[in-house]
Amino acid sequence: MEFTASQIAGFINGRIIGDENTIITGVSPIESGEEGHLSFIAQDKFAGYLETTACAVLIVSEHLLEDKDYKPTIIALPDAYAAFQVLMNLYQSMRETKKMGIESGSFVHETATVAADAYVAAFAYVSEKASVGSGTEIFPHVFLGKNVKIGENCRIASGVKIHDYCVVGDHCIIHSNTVIGSDGFGFAPDKDGLKKIPQLGNVVIENNVEIGSNCSIDRGTIGSTVIGEGTKLDNLLQIAHNVKLGKNNVIAAQTGIAGSTTMGDWNMIGGQAGLAGHIHLGNYVKIQGQSGVNYNMKDGEVVYGSPAFSASEYRRNYVHFRNLSAIVKRIDDLEKKISGQEINE
Amino acid sequence: MEFTASQIAGFINGRIIGDENTIITGVSPIESGEEGHLSFIAQDKFAGYLETTACAVLIVSEHLLEDKDYKPTIIALPDAYAAFQVLMNLYQSMRETKKMGIESGSFVHETATVAADAYVAAFAYVSEKASVGSGTEIFPHVFLGKNVKIGENCRIASGVKIHDYCVVGDHCIIHSNTVIGSDGFGFAPDKDGLKKIPQLGNVVIENNVEIGSNCSIDRGTIGSTVIGEGTKLDNLLQIAHNVKLGKNNVIAAQTGIAGSTTMGDWNMIGGQAGLAGHIHLGNYVKIQGQSGVNYNMKDGEVVYGSPAFSASEYRRNYVHFRNLSAIVKRIDDLEKKISGQEINE
Amino acid sequence: MEFTASQIAGFINGRIIGDENTIITGVSPIESGEEGHLSFIAQDKFAGYLETTACAVLIVSEHLLEDKDYKPTIIALPDAYAAFQVLMNLYQSMRETKKMGIESGSFVHETATVAADAYVAAFAYVSEKASVGSGTEIFPHVFLGKNVKIGENCRIASGVKIHDYCVVGDHCIIHSNTVIGSDGFGFAPDKDGLKKIPQLGNVVIENNVEIGSNCSIDRGTIGSTVIGEGTKLDNLLQIAHNVKLGKNNVIAAQTGIAGSTTMGDWNMIGGQAGLAGHIHLGNYVKIQGQSGVNYNMKDGEVVYGSPAFSASEYRRNYVHFRNLSAIVKRIDDLEKKISGQEINE
Repeated sequence: MEFTASQIAGFINGRIIGDENTIITGVSPIESGEEGHLSFIAQDKFAGYLETTACAVLIVSEHLLEDKDYKPTIIALPDAYAAFQVLMNLYQSMRETKKMGIESGSFVHETATVAADAYVAAFAYVSEKASVGSGTEIFPHVFLGKNVKIGENCRIASGVKIHDYCVVGDHCIIHSNTVIGSDGFGFAPDKDGLKKIPQLGNVVIENNVEIGSNCSIDRGTIGSTVIGEGTKLDNLLQIAHNVKLGKNNVIAAQTGIAGSTTMGDWNMIGGQAGLAGHIHLGNYVKIQGQSGVNYNMKDGEVVYGSPAFSASEYRRNYVHFRNLSAIVKRIDDLEKKISGQEINE
Repeated sequence: MEFTASQIAGFINGRIIGDENTIITGVSPIESGEEGHLSFIAQDKFAGYLETTACAVLIVSEHLLEDKDYKPTIIALPDAYAAFQVLMNLYQSMRETKKMGIESGSFVHETATVAADAYVAAFAYVSEKASVGSGTEIFPHVFLGKNVKIGENCRIASGVKIHDYCVVGDHCIIHSNTVIGSDGFGFAPDKDGLKKIPQLGNVVIENNVEIGSNCSIDRGTIGSTVIGEGTKLDNLLQIAHNVKLGKNNVIAAQTGIAGSTTMGDWNMIGGQAGLAGHIHLGNYVKIQGQSGVNYNMKDGEVVYGSPAFSASEYRRNYVHFRNLSAIVKRIDDLEKKISGQEINE
Repeated sequence: MEFTASQIAGFINGRIIGDENTIITGVSPIESGEEGHLSFIAQDKFAGYLETTACAVLIVSEHLLEDKDYKPTIIALPDAYAAFQVLMNLYQSMRETKKMGIESGSFVHETATVAADAYVAAFAYVSEKASVGSGTEIFPHVFLGKNVKIGENCRIASGVKIHDYCVVGDHCIIHSNTVIGSDGFGFAPDKDGLKKIPQLGNVVIENNVEIGSNCSIDRGTIGSTVIGEGTKLDNLLQIAHNVKLGKNNVIAAQTGIAGSTTMGDWNMIGGQAGLAGHIHLGNYVKIQGQSGVNYNMKDGEVVYGSPAFSASEYRRNYVHFRNLSAIVKRIDDLEKKISGQEINE
């Protein structure tokens, strides 16, 4: 797809400075702009690229422009970032046409229900009594177990496995090879070994959830593991049985949450963090990456460390930890002086 | 499936208090009991739910009951937890009927052997000379490489990949998208780059092992990576080449074990822990989540930290770490006093 | 495949001591040598196995041998390790014959291009305009999105998903269930929730790269996520959008690299490490496992800790951390003495 500067300016209602017929052949981040490409500048710190970029066309926030000529064609408007996002959404919708229909080579059980305008790819497996809502795309190598319900306008990427009785709401995106509804990890030791505790609950994923690739979200032992509306999960997450996440939480990659832990809304959890089981987090908490949380957290707390405590205190104490050898040396010196005084006395 | 209180009481030999015809439409954890559902109370701390639950029927340990009327129908017996487990196992066996036969749309090489009562799903791929034992279920999108042997009564969930020459025992469960027998991570650097060291061993999984979803268990460089009998692995584990785990170990999610490390039996390892390569752990050790172990551990040791040492010492020292700013302040004060004394002298 | 000692000696030009007709039925690591097997001894510390091994044939470095009889047949030569590697490469090439042709039961879009000598397995899905180079093997359950380009002589293992517009060079190995080109994790919060930022870039994997199983490598937001030539990634790695890795980097399992971070060449990163976003690492840095790096690193730096700093300083300070209770006791004592002196004065 090729566009001219004037076509782009038209989409986003911008003012052209330079050649309106300049052709755009791609899009680059401004730090690595390529010849013939479009990029944008919305912040002072990137303004230097106005002079040095190889890009053909730049969308620029008005206040960053001087009254002079620039080598690239400029599209000027009040908020370059917002305009660029509009453009990217437009570009995406042009590039990714939705698929429809049941592709030859898929397996759809005779008791399953697939909406007329849904897509089920070759090599997707839809088990008995499963249902797929309107506008939803089921890509190759997806497995939907018995009685699984997928809502409307979802994208279930290649290789996702959703096991028996799990439920996914509307407008959800689940990325490749994520597993929803595997058995929770529950065993009772006896003298002969570890006896499996049946895992009979399910996973409920509410509307507008996005889940990254290679995540593991286990079914409840009894009852549901719940991912609340609007929550966004990154890649390689572990969500154990009976965890309940509220709305609009953001959890970065490789974090793990142990069994039966619950949280409210709008929490932000960094990557590789670990949450112990059976704890509760309120709302608007922040957990620094690699932290280990093993107690309830109140609204707005910000923590770091393993085990975690106040992030600002952690950082302050860590400065001293980095300096512990010198601190011990000071104690050595004090002890020498004291013992010298004692001898003197 | 609907049951009455009297049917349930019959299965587990309980005494009914209340209406024996109460109908049960589902099962809930007691903390979030739903109308019409069954739950159980086996511990003092949950006894309060006897008065407040929305559940229709509760299985309750006798000693928690008073001589009075309750709103839900009660099924009383000595050990409510054990009775509930019996019921859940029964429920599971009713809900999950085993599949049998080779489903149309699967690929089974002409030299492969599949037991008459095994199940091979559509889109499963069984390579040359692979074998699948009696009563074993191979779900969609499973890949079995050349000469792979799967024992009897196993469940190999959708998306599991088991590579050439690997062996799985009897009564094993491997959850979705776990990879068994990928190449170990071995390279020899030379001036041109990193040269691959051939990975020619395999993985041997003994009887009664359960492995979570999205795990990576690499083949031995030469010889085998071994997961010992009865060991249970959670999700997203990394098990490197030539690791050997003994019997009945329990390892929580996202833990990684580096190459050639070995361990005995009945060890418990928390989530997100890391074990260095070429070390040995005895039996009955406990490793706290997020710990990093880089040395041999004796029977019964309990450790925490990165690098890990005695968990009780770690916790004691960590209390001081949390307080390091105040500790340094005390040293500041001591230094001032000492230097004051010196000036005074 | 069975060989005699003399056949093996012929391949690697070794001198036989003992029975040249001894038959070899397998290969073992020397620490767990099995009857009838071949192994090797190249280091002093393993020389004791010359007397005790159950192996039938040993390849041994000349300088480790005494002028006496050994129970196993010995194949003597200057460098037993190098000779053994030659043998293992040979063994691998005999055991793993390359597959060719488009297997029945695969899906190849009519606009896709597959080289005549490439392999596309049953249940592999090759989307529109994707291309597969000469000598490349695409195993079962692989998904190649629109316009994906795979170079020559690659091995794309069962279950790998490579999304639209991503590019893989020549001689690459990607292990099972790894996901290349899922959406990056980018959301803009507004009052109604978290709005998805379109992820329109791709992933570029250069030549001679090997990637372990269950890795997640996200596409750039705009522009590319890049894995540089010769770089080797272990299992379960998280590589976020717009990360750029240079050449010949080695990254151990379960490490995560956040968005837009870049690095040069020949860096070594331990397992379970975390790199913050938007930082730059030079060349030849070493990062200890479980470390958290949140700042730029210069060539040759070696770090440990969360947050990470000089590894040698970390270890030195950690010794004091392990001893903090005793250190605080020393401060207690000092305070008592000082306050005693003050009272005395």
